Amino acid sequence: MRNIKLVLAYDGTGYAGWQRQSGQPSIQQTLEEAIVRLTQGPVLLHGAGRTDAGVHAEGMVANFQTEASIPLLGLVKGLNSMLPEAIRVLSAEKVANDFHARYNATGKVYTYTFMATEIMPPCLRLYAAQVRDPFACDAVRLCLPMLVGTHDFSSFEAVGSRDLSRAGCRGAVRTIFAASLAEQEEAMPVCRLIISGDGFLRHMVRNIVGTLFAVGRGRLTPLDFQEIVAARDRSLAGPTAPAKGLTLKRVLY
Amino acid sequence: MRNIKLVLAYDGTGYAGWQRQSGQPSIQQTLEEAIVRLTQGPVLLHGAGRTDAGVHAEGMVANFQTEASIPLLGLVKGLNSMLPEAIRVLSAEKVANDFHARYNATGKVYTYTFMATEIMPPCLRLYAAQVRDPFACDAVRLCLPMLVGTHDFSSFEAVGSRDLSRAGCRGAVRTIFAASLAEQEEAMPVCRLIISGDGFLRHMVRNIVGTLFAVGRGRLTPLDFQEIVAARDRSLAGPTAPAKGLTLKRVLY
Repeated sequence: MRNIKLVLAYDGTGYAGWQRQSGQPSIQQTLEEAIVRLTQGPVLLHGAGRTDAGVHAEGMVANFQTEASIPLLGLVKGLNSMLPEAIRVLSAEKVANDFHARYNATGKVYTYTFMATEIMPPCLRLYAAQVRDPFACDAVRLCLPMLVGTHDFSSFEAVGSRDLSRAGCRGAVRTIFAASLAEQEEAMPVCRLIISGDGFLRHMVRNIVGTLFAVGRGRLTPLDFQEIVAARDRSLAGPTAPAKGLTLKRVLY
Repeated sequence: MRNIKLVLAYDGTGYAGWQRQSGQPSIQQTLEEAIVRLTQGPVLLHGAGRTDAGVHAEGMVANFQTEASIPLLGLVKGLNSMLPEAIRVLSAEKVANDFHARYNATGKVYTYTFMATEIMPPCLRLYAAQVRDPFACDAVRLCLPMLVGTHDFSSFEAVGSRDLSRAGCRGAVRTIFAASLAEQEEAMPVCRLIISGDGFLRHMVRNIVGTLFAVGRGRLTPLDFQEIVAARDRSLAGPTAPAKGLTLKRVLY
């Protein structure tokens, strides 16, 4: 029995999210079906976490146990030949039997992509959120250091967020390693927030981004943002930013 | 009666190309229907050229005559509210009555985006072509100066390419202003060919790119490429590169 670690990329546009759901195609289910077809055995795929409907990934990690003797490169090529082009297996690796994609993860890196524009470029519409112009990136940058470090992120927690079996013991306390905002100037400025931490509550990145949008548009000041972080009260923060701007870049082990 | 010049962007993925076709949605038809709804009058939209199915645009130009007195900004906002998000009107401008988007165009700028990779990133799969790694960009760069200037581009012409009513008089002779290849290094190198000229035959950019791909993969040398340009024989050039990598960036007037 081998324990296989997969690194995955996907376009979340057409899917109900990572997790298997009844009635809607999920990334997990689509992958499991391809693995079953290739390995000719039952499979349970453990993802490093859930991504919501419409959220993308460039470095999701998942693992599964298999009796099949297919070489690792054959596994990558075989799965990619069966999967829709919206889902790609980037690599497959044999790992220790006790490796678990979720329990062993020590952190995650997300990006959130958005554009301050009146008119969204069609070819970015599924991969970036739109914010109204003018947008003060400098004010947003002032907020980012307030996120770094170990905090109770209740203000940015979605209802029903906690995974009680594992994360319940630490409540809404998470450690953010780094947060930065890059502007990529081409014809139009595409802004990318990069945020890494030891874990994220459900909707936490999108709720942080929604609140940062309010700062960028002048509806909240960086001081308001600091107070919202400290308040541990979800009702004070901004709305949840759209899923399509969010990408899981990497899972840390 | 006003003559209105529109600048347009679109994601060509779901469309049969610019030109109105029976049975398949086209960009032209989708725009004409929105204009008719907004202006409450018949409309004939003249595009600066045709783009094939799956080809994108960031700066297509089209014009139409209208009796409607809607302000230009209202036209932009009204059309964008009716159009699918895959098609955006970037601007509307009142122009001289004799302005014609196609006849007055003095040139066009295209980009062709591709990646040398074994596994295509899902979120780029509709907007870039895949070439096998290794790919020699330097060899491609040696070819580009051979394209610049006034040449007979028969080697890169699709069958049935000529618009006899206008361009027939100059045959397959076109002038390329500039051609360059940029590598955008992020996690994976995305390559972008930029090519501008006074006009392009049908499939000309994609046929040039398909031949450059053969050079990049070592199947043809830059010297072979030079001979193909000189030969004026379509049968010598490479296959037509996929539509999805091509974007009409600008129309010059």
